[in-house]
Parts: sequence; C-alpha cells; structure tokens
Amino acid sequence: MIDLNADLGEGFGRWTLTDDDALLSVVTSANVACGFHAGDPSVMHRVCALAAERGVRIGAQVSYRDLAGFGRRAMEVPPAELAAEVAYQIGALRVFAEAAGSEVAYVKPHGALYNRTVHDAAQARAVVAGVRLAGGALPVLGLPGSRLLDAAAEAGLPGVPEAFADRAYTARGTLVPRGEADSVVTDADAVVDRALGFAVRGGVAAVDGTTVAVLARSLCVHGDTPGAARIAARVRAALEAAGVGIGAFA
Amino acid sequence: MIDLNADLGEGFGRWTLTDDDALLSVVTSANVACGFHAGDPSVMHRVCALAAERGVRIGAQVSYRDLAGFGRRAMEVPPAELAAEVAYQIGALRVFAEAAGSEVAYVKPHGALYNRTVHDAAQARAVVAGVRLAGGALPVLGLPGSRLLDAAAEAGLPGVPEAFADRAYTARGTLVPRGEADSVVTDADAVVDRALGFAVRGGVAAVDGTTVAVLARSLCVHGDTPGAARIAARVRAALEAAGVGIGAFA
Amino acid sequence: MIDLNADLGEGFGRWTLTDDDALLSVVTSANVACGFHAGDPSVMHRVCALAAERGVRIGAQVSYRDLAGFGRRAMEVPPAELAAEVAYQIGALRVFAEAAGSEVAYVKPHGALYNRTVHDAAQARAVVAGVRLAGGALPVLGLPGSRLLDAAAEAGLPGVPEAFADRAYTARGTLVPRGEADSVVTDADAVVDRALGFAVRGGVAAVDGTTVAVLARSLCVHGDTPGAARIAARVRAALEAAGVGIGAFA
Amino acid sequence: MIDLNADLGEGFGRWTLTDDDALLSVVTSANVACGFHAGDPSVMHRVCALAAERGVRIGAQVSYRDLAGFGRRAMEVPPAELAAEVAYQIGALRVFAEAAGSEVAYVKPHGALYNRTVHDAAQARAVVAGVRLAGGALPVLGLPGSRLLDAAAEAGLPGVPEAFADRAYTARGTLVPRGEADSVVTDADAVVDRALGFAVRGGVAAVDGTTVAVLARSLCVHGDTPGAARIAARVRAALEAAGVGIGAFA
Repeated sequence: MIDLNADLGEGFGRWTLTDDDALLSVVTSANVACGFHAGDPSVMHRVCALAAERGVRIGAQVSYRDLAGFGRRAMEVPPAELAAEVAYQIGALRVFAEAAGSEVAYVKPHGALYNRTVHDAAQARAVVAGVRLAGGALPVLGLPGSRLLDAAAEAGLPGVPEAFADRAYTARGTLVPRGEADSVVTDADAVVDRALGFAVRGGVAAVDGTTVAVLARSLCVHGDTPGAARIAARVRAALEAAGVGIGAFA
Repeated sequence: MIDLNADLGEGFGRWTLTDDDALLSVVTSANVACGFHAGDPSVMHRVCALAAERGVRIGAQVSYRDLAGFGRRAMEVPPAELAAEVAYQIGALRVFAEAAGSEVAYVKPHGALYNRTVHDAAQARAVVAGVRLAGGALPVLGLPGSRLLDAAAEAGLPGVPEAFADRAYTARGTLVPRGEADSVVTDADAVVDRALGFAVRGGVAAVDGTTVAVLARSLCVHGDTPGAARIAARVRAALEAAGVGIGAFA
Repeated sequence: MIDLNADLGEGFGRWTLTDDDALLSVVTSANVACGFHAGDPSVMHRVCALAAERGVRIGAQVSYRDLAGFGRRAMEVPPAELAAEVAYQIGALRVFAEAAGSEVAYVKPHGALYNRTVHDAAQARAVVAGVRLAGGALPVLGLPGSRLLDAAAEAGLPGVPEAFADRAYTARGTLVPRGEADSVVTDADAVVDRALGFAVRGGVAAVDGTTVAVLARSLCVHGDTPGAARIAARVRAALEAAGVGIGAFA
Repeated sequence: MIDLNADLGEGFGRWTLTDDDALLSVVTSANVACGFHAGDPSVMHRVCALAAERGVRIGAQVSYRDLAGFGRRAMEVPPAELAAEVAYQIGALRVFAEAAGSEVAYVKPHGALYNRTVHDAAQARAVVAGVRLAGGALPVLGLPGSRLLDAAAEAGLPGVPEAFADRAYTARGTLVPRGEADSVVTDADAVVDRALGFAVRGGVAAVDGTTVAVLARSLCVHGDTPGAARIAARVRAALEAAGVGIGAFA
C-alpha cells in the first residue's frame, strides 16, 4: 500500500504552473502551496475544492517566504520566526480545506526548506514546532533518515517517509543534489520502473550502480514539468498493475 | 455596556507601530493585523498570546494585500478574489488565537477596505463571503448604516455597529474623510468627551454643530499615534466613572 | 510608418508568461515589465540583452505595485507616491537597458494603471511626474484622447498614440472594457485586418458597426496569450505586404 | 581624513526607523536603502533630496529581497540572480539621486548580505558583478580583509575599508557576531573612544584585550537605535576636536 503525493496549486495570480486538474485525478495526497513560495488565496480555494471533490487528501506545502525564488533559496530564518511562518501557512490553508468539507491532513516542507531540514536539526525542529503550534498533531512528510523525521518523532508527530520516483539517489539513500548531472530522471520508463522499485522491491539503483534500500510510505511525483501529469498517470497504472494498493497513508 | 476595540499588531518584521502591550491593558477587543497590511506571523503569535493572557477578545483585522500602502489604498479587487483573501487572513490568525487557547471571535476590515465597504455593496458582500468561507458565522464590525453591516445581515452574520472616539462626524453620521481638515480629533479631553457621548448620550456633535445620533455597540480607540495608549486608558476610566459597563460584545 | 509594441518580460521567478524570444523577432518596441506587476531583475536583464541584440527599442512598462493581481487591480495611490513608484521602476530598468548598450526609450503604463489614466487626470499627471523625475523627457505611450497623453503634452513630454489590434472599440474610440462580451478579438484574420485598418485606413469598425477613426503611431500586439507570437508575426507580414513601413517611433 | 557613513531611509510605507533628518546633519555618506529590505520609493526620494541638499554623498545600500526579515536572514541566492538584484537596486536609487542633482557614488551591502560577503567569495563576486552591471565602476564599502573587498579589487572597483564604532572586534579584526554577548557597544563614551581609536590610533581593543589594527577609510555609525543620532553627533565632534578631518572618501 503506497500513497502518491504531488505539489499542487503552484500558480500565483496571473501565473500558472502545475496541471492541478490532471494531477488530482492521479494522486492520493495533494501538497497545496500556501502563499509563501506560490499559491494565492484564490488558487488555494480552487485546489482545495477540487481535491475534496475527488477524495484527494490535502496537505500544507509550507515554504520559506520567497515568491521571487519560488522557495528554492535556503534562508537563515531564526527558529521562532520559522515556526510562526509554518503555522501561519497551515492556518491559511485550513480555511479552504475545511470550507471544502475536508481538512489539512499533513504537512510537507517545500524546496529549500525541505532540503535544509534533511540535515539542519534546528530548522527541522522549528518546522515541527510550527506544525505543533497549528494544532492537531499533523503527520509530517520527509526523507527517510532526515532531521525532519527525527524532529517529528521527538515531538510525537507521525513521520511519513517518502521517496522520489524521478530523482537520482546516492548509495547512502540521499538525493543527488539538483545542480549535479543526472540528478533528475526524465525518461518516463525509468521513472515508472523506479516507482515500482520503491513500492515493490523496497529500493532502487543508486548512481554508483549499487542498490539502495528506501522504505517509503509515500511516493512523490512532480507536477511542475511538461508531461508531469501523464508520467504520474503511468506510474499509478504500473503500480496498480503490479498489485500495489494506492491509498493515502493512515 | 460597551466594547472597546483597537487595531493591534501593526508592526512588520523590524518595524513596530502599535503599543500592543499597553493597549491590551485597556481594550476588550483586539483587532489583530493578519499580514496583508501589517502583522507578520511572529507579531501575530505574540499579540494573540498576550491578548489571551489578558482576557482580551481577538478579532481578525483583514485588509487589502498592500504592505507598501499599509492597506490605505483602495483597490479594485474582484469579489471572489477578495473573499478568498479575507478567508486566508482569518485562517492564518486563527492558528495563533487557538494556540493561545482563544479564538478568532470577530472580523473588522482595515483602512481602505473598511472605508470602501461603507458604500460599495459588492466589496462589502465579498468581505462577508470571505467571513462565511472561513466558517463559524463570525460577527462583523462596521459603521452603522454601512453596506458592510447590510451584507452581514443578509448573510445571517451578526453585525456590530461601532463608533470612533477620535473622528469627526458629518450630520448624516458618516466619518469626515481623513484628508479633510479637522477629520481627526487630537485633543485628549475632546476624545474622552466624545466617547462618553457615544456610550452615554447616544450621539456626538457633528461638524456642522448639530447633534448626530450614533448607536454603537463598540467604540474604536486608535493605537497607532503617539500617546494612543494613554488616551485609550483615559477613555476607559471616564466610561467606568460614568457607570458604563465595559465588556466585549456577546 | 508604424511601430509595433508588445508587453514582454512578464514572468516572475519560476513563472513565465510571454514568449519573449519569439516576440522580439516581430516587434520594434518592447514594453518591459519592471518588477511591480511582473518581471524580476533576472528576467529584465535577459529581455533587455535580447532586445538590444535584435535592435528592438526598450520601454518601461510601469505598473501599480501588485504582483498578486498582475497590476490589473486599480489602486488609489496618492499622486506623490505613484510618481515615485513610476520613477523607481524606470530607474531599475535603465540599468539593464544600458548594460546591454541600449536605453529606456519610452514609458507605457500597464494594466489597471493604463486604464485608469485614460480618464483620471490626477493619476495621469502622477505618472507623467514620475517620468519627469526619472529624467530624459521620455515619450509616453497611451490611448489617443487619454488624460495620460494630455498630461504628457502639458509637461512637454512626447505623447505616442497607440491602437490595439485585438481589442474592440466603441464608436467614441475607447476600448470596450475587458469584462464585456466581445471585448477581445481572438480570430487571427480579424486581428490582422484590424491592424491594417489602423495602419492603412486610419480606423476600424466599432462595436456598433460604425467606423471609428483612430490615429495611431504605434500598434500594440499582445504577448500573453497562446499563439500570440504567431499572430503578431502575421500582423507584421500583412503590414509589410501592404507597404506599411515598420519602425520604432522617432 | 575619515568618512562617516550611516544606514538611512530604512522605513517602509507607514513605518519609520532611522532618524534620517538628524543623521544627515552628521554623516558624510548616506547608505540609502533601496526597497529590498526597507525603503519604498517615496522614502528614497525624500532621503536623496535631503542628502543632496546637505551635501551628503549617496550610496546604494543593497540587500537580499527580504522585507519580512529586514535583510538580516542570509539567503542562498544563485550568483547571476544576486547580481541582477544588486543592479536593480542601484538603478532604482540612481533615479532619485540624480533627480536631486547628485549621484549614486558607492555601494554597501546590508545586513546578512554584508556579513555573508565577508567570507563567501561567490556571493562577494556576485555583488561586485551587480555593481559592474550597474555601470560607473562604483566604489564598494566593506570590512578590511573581506572577500567583498577582494572581489572589488579583482574587478577593478575601488574598495573602501570601513570600521564600526559600536561593534566589538576579535583579535583577528573581524566583528564579534551579533548573537554573542557584548557584540554591540552601547555605552556612548566607549563608542566615541573607539571611533577615535580607528581614526587616530589605527586600531581598537579586541575582546581578548589585545590591540587589533584596523585601517579604515570610513567609519559606520548606526542609525536604527534610540539615541543613534545623538551618539553619531558626539562621534563627529570628538573626531573634529582631535583634529581628524571629516570628509567623504575620494
């Protein structure tokens, strides 16, 4: 049984990015942008309504406050400030999730905040403090072995380990950084095969050719590239054909 | 029995404006800025905690998205967008109010949005739609006779008429626009006397010398001027001395 | 002899909108967004370099400060503030134009500011004051008969009347507002025919069937719709085939 | 002969911070905020006019794009983006400096960007690339021994070493980080004495009691603390009494 998650609602004002409608027909969990790196209130409203209608779970995709950099520029935010920023975003999204008869069911940091909290325990704890401030003991999605999942465990929040079907892995189970060659897997067949690797075989080939074990409860498919929705649909179909149950984590 | 409200939490990042600590010792309702004209998440967090500790009611002071203009520049925001922006702000504040063991108990538009919804029925309905989107049928503070209170009534939301102790009134009961001469009453004795006028005598002298009846359930004292907290304290003391009960509206 | 202008550089951070590369092969004047409704510094840098390389004139497309609304929401900005905001945008763009060996050669207001300054003399004068503050007595593009061109004339700045190939006109020569039915001409053949109307016949059919005279020195082709670059290329080809000279205004 | 510089124009919209008027009567160089961490176009306009009137030199105080954090949160901005952001700010300020009959005469990074470019060669080179992009081979203010002054030298830009009268120094000549105890000197007599140390004796006492040599061509006095203007005036008077010439660097 595996969950499929994607980043959605990443437009802002006049600009669109993710094919929210198509992806909401594929995934079981929608990481909805909350206005700090993308996602204005109108987009959030629309995506939450659509997600609720399709029975897709809604999560808060929280970010550094950085529209110009799309949340991809790491920032030295003091922990108390970061916690408050995370809570603010969760609260703002909650209004639209609840108006649609749903709820904010989990939290996933975006971009640079996600990458930073793999290694940075102070920022990881600040994100978790923000989740707790927002109430409801929400589950947190993160990389297996990350400081983020450690901090969630410390704070009594469920941690949900996730894997990326289209990202290259090192032999130690970390992602090859985006800047490096071959960090992103673009071939659709390869993405599908790697998704099966995570869901069925419990691992994938690392960049050095060895096999790396990755225990993931959720699988992230990206939504911001051309053809993203089509690849995501193929991933889902292949998982189902292999007998893997597709469903949101408990 | 009258409520005293003030705009609070109107700093942003490095900048401070309102003397939140002093005013929270005087008012019964705190209109907390929600980040669109002022009020970053850290400020909102701190003000909500302090308000809850002092037993002061928390309301969402919602605004146009305009940090550079402090929400004082009217904007032609399409109604659906405006409603979503209002709901977003309420949701964001709710997290901090609830973390403090309190709640967002009412909504008051700020600055240009407040002035605009006195006359503009479409924007007034959009604000009310945003309040409804945010759930909980929250009361709305507004000027007696405003389109905002009409829209609240239409939508089944409690409307709370308020008066301004430091603003000049026309004979028709509207505020003299800020740009005009003598629109703001700066003499502390006059402010106190006018507060008594609203609370005890049900009206004040208009700019043309006639007496204008103003039925107010809440009295706004401003917080963003030098000496604001001291004047607010004098207003409260004078009301109490006159036997007026001070308390948040039901 | 007619100028072809288009709005360019209307991406922001991760988001793109206009097909800058294709349009710069067609137009003679590029209205480059300056960061207030779109256009971050990196986009501005890139578009200016490309425009200079292609010999396309660079103009400052100045806007209200409104990223969330893409500058399409009219705002009540006090004149002195608006003038300073206009000057700021021109100065910022100038750096990139000059770094590319070119210059900011004219100014055109964007979206709601453009529409507002058709009728609002105070805001029109504020825009012109901003242009003067920025130095160099830059020409101003606007609708024939607009307050903006009046204000430019008053201030001794050249006014450049422009026409819109893809917008419907009233019998009085004003644009049919965007909200109304048939305000935008989407059929490519019709757009081409109307461009010829302005450039060759000095007018087009108004919505009531009468012919309206429009004397334009520049023709705006839009860049933010699918197929925009292709239609713009057809407009240019048809004008050239009809013997109309294409060139930036003096 | 020494220059006195201060950060000015650090208000934004409704918020004020620095006592621009008083400080402009003391300093010889004004580091004017350019809108990314503080400083809206109206403030920039006013401060430039006043600086020009008083014969104070104008410099661009460039920052990360971070209003909420007042530019005090380090950011991982890719070098090309950072260079464009720096150039944008210089260009925007130049309009107001030139409108006042003055010019942007130098550049000084603000807050986290200043601290980052002490050690980070890539960001230091990006700032310098932005200065070059803006044209005019402007001098760059920085800490003696910083990567920023190295990068300026590499690029053929004049580097101006500066000292801080109110900051504690390590024995190696670097500033004690703000977070640490006693990093800021608050006693006015001590600030004055240290200013004399830099200007007359070529050094000050480090935190470990040893004397550290600091060769500075400009002395920074802070403007954003209560009493800042008064202390700055005392520093100037003491320097003059000691026979130190006060004047902008060449």
